[in-house]
Amino acid sequence: MSFKLTILGCNSAVPTVERHPTAQLLTANERFFLIDCGEGTQVQLRKYQLSFQRINHIFISHLHGDHYFGLIGLINSMHLLGRNKDLHIYGHQELKAIIDLQLAASNTELNYPLFFHPIPEDNEQILFEDELISVRNVLLNHTLKCSGFIFEEKKSKRKISKEKIEKLNIPYEKFNSIKEGADWIDGKGRVVKNDEITIENTPSHSYAFCTDTLYNEALIEKIKGVDLLYHEATFKKELSHRAKETGHSTTFDAATIARKAAVKHLMIGHFSQRYRNLDELLFETKITFPNTYLAESGLVLDFNKLSS
Amino acid sequence: MSFKLTILGCNSAVPTVERHPTAQLLTANERFFLIDCGEGTQVQLRKYQLSFQRINHIFISHLHGDHYFGLIGLINSMHLLGRNKDLHIYGHQELKAIIDLQLAASNTELNYPLFFHPIPEDNEQILFEDELISVRNVLLNHTLKCSGFIFEEKKSKRKISKEKIEKLNIPYEKFNSIKEGADWIDGKGRVVKNDEITIENTPSHSYAFCTDTLYNEALIEKIKGVDLLYHEATFKKELSHRAKETGHSTTFDAATIARKAAVKHLMIGHFSQRYRNLDELLFETKITFPNTYLAESGLVLDFNKLSS
Repeated sequence: MSFKLTILGCNSAVPTVERHPTAQLLTANERFFLIDCGEGTQVQLRKYQLSFQRINHIFISHLHGDHYFGLIGLINSMHLLGRNKDLHIYGHQELKAIIDLQLAASNTELNYPLFFHPIPEDNEQILFEDELISVRNVLLNHTLKCSGFIFEEKKSKRKISKEKIEKLNIPYEKFNSIKEGADWIDGKGRVVKNDEITIENTPSHSYAFCTDTLYNEALIEKIKGVDLLYHEATFKKELSHRAKETGHSTTFDAATIARKAAVKHLMIGHFSQRYRNLDELLFETKITFPNTYLAESGLVLDFNKLSS
Repeated sequence: MSFKLTILGCNSAVPTVERHPTAQLLTANERFFLIDCGEGTQVQLRKYQLSFQRINHIFISHLHGDHYFGLIGLINSMHLLGRNKDLHIYGHQELKAIIDLQLAASNTELNYPLFFHPIPEDNEQILFEDELISVRNVLLNHTLKCSGFIFEEKKSKRKISKEKIEKLNIPYEKFNSIKEGADWIDGKGRVVKNDEITIENTPSHSYAFCTDTLYNEALIEKIKGVDLLYHEATFKKELSHRAKETGHSTTFDAATIARKAAVKHLMIGHFSQRYRNLDELLFETKITFPNTYLAESGLVLDFNKLSS
C-alpha cells in the first residue's frame, strides 16, 4: 500500500524563521497520522498543501513544547473550519488537561468528537489498530516521560498463483478460502499446501519514530529491521557529554542504534540550533550507518521507493 | 520620545502561510510592549529582527486562540535562550493556570521571574505605569471577556523659553524650579506666570488597541483624541449581521468609532480569512474616516512621523 512520510519540522527547542520544531505526517493508504505538533505545524501543513482535516490520529511523543505547542491551534482551526468527524489524540495524560483548560477558557465546545487516548507510562502496547496498520508506543529514555511510535503495516494476505491454479485446475469458488490460507485437496484426496499455490503479496512497511531519547539499547530489539528509523541526533559526536546531560543522542548514538537494530534506513533529526551546516551531522552519521537521510522540512519519503 | 508600532500579525481566527494572527510590538523609548501573541509570534519577531528578550511586558486581550496561542512558546523560548530578567504578563485570570499547567507538564522552572497581573473583568484601571508611560485596560464587548489597552505617554515637563529668560534676565539657578512649574518674581516683586516663560515640550503620544469587539459607543469617551486607534474590522459593512453574531465589528463600525472619538488616525485589522483583497476594506473604511491605515504584517508606524 502507499506509505509516505512528510517532514514538517525537525529541529529542537526554539523555532526560527527557517527551522521548524518537530512534526511529521505519515500517510498510509488514506490514513493520515500526525506525529508530534510543534508550534506552527498547521501552517507547515498548509505550506505543503496537506489537508489537515484528513488527519484523524495525532501522536504526541512528550510534553516539551517543541513537540506539542502547535496542537491546540490545530485542534482549534479544525473546529473553526467546520470539522465534524472524530479526532483521536494519543499523548501522556497531562496533555488532556492542557487541551481541556484551553478549550474551557474560550468557552469552546468542539464541533467534532475528540477522543483522548493516554499513552501508558511504563509499558508498551498497541495504541491504534485497524485492518491495515498498527501503531504501538515504545518507551524512550529522556528527561521527561517520552514515547516513540512504531507504525507497522500488517502483512497482506498471500495472492493466488495464477500459474499453479491453472495447472491444478482449481475452481473459482475455492479462491477465497485459499486466499484465507486453506490448502487444496484435489479429487484424489491429495493435499497441496497453501504456500505452494499462493505467492507473497507486496511487502509490508514499517516505521519507527524515536525522539527525544538518550542512547538506549533497549530499543534495538523493538525496532529490529524496520524500513525506516527516525532517530534524533541533536548533537555531533564531540558533544556526547551535552547529549547525556540533556537526555539526547549524538549522530554516533543514532547510527549505532540503527546498525545494531539492522534497520533498512535511518533518518536523523531534532538538530540543535547551534548547527548551521547539517551536512556535517549527516556525514558523521554515515560513517557508522551509510544508509542515512537528513530530515528537512518538506522532505517526502515514499517507502515504496526506498532503495532496498 | 520614540514611539513605534510594528504589526506582527493582524488576521482573525486561523493562521495561514501568508497571514498571521494578532500580535503587535509597541516600542516606547526602549520599552518593548508586546500586545497579543497568536501562534507563530516568536517567529514573526525573529523575521523582523526584533529581539524578544527585550520585551518585558506582554498584554493579552482575551483567550481566543488567535490572540494567545503563541504565548507559551515565547515564554519557553525566552527561558531556553537564557533570559534572567523579569517578565510581566497582563491577561485574564484563566491565562495563569494555562501557563502554569504547561510549565508543570514539562517540569520547567523558568530561569527568570514571571509576574502575572490579572486584568480586572469589570472595571478599568492602570495596569502598568512608570515615569514615562501608562497602560490601562478598557472593557470591550465580545463573545468572551475581552480587554482593550490604552498606552499613554505622560506629558513632558514644559521647556524654558530661552527668549523670555534672556529678556527677563532670569538667573540660571532658577531654571530647575521654573521647569517644575514655578512662576518668576523679579526684583520689583512683579510675578510672571510660569506659562509665560516656558513652552510646551514635544507632544506626548497615545495608542489605543481595541480588538475583538462589537461596535461599542462606550469606547468613545475613553479613547477620545488618541493619536492612533487600532480597531478591529473583521467584516465588510455588508456583513454587519455576521459581525453582530460573532461579537465583531465591520469597517463601518470601526470608522464610526474613530470619527466619533475624533482620534487622529485609525488602523483597521483582524480581517476575516474570507477577504483576499484587503484594499476593499480600507476603501470602505475611508469613506467614513479618511485617515485610516490597513494593518499588515511588517508594517511599522512611527508616531513621530504620523501626519497631523
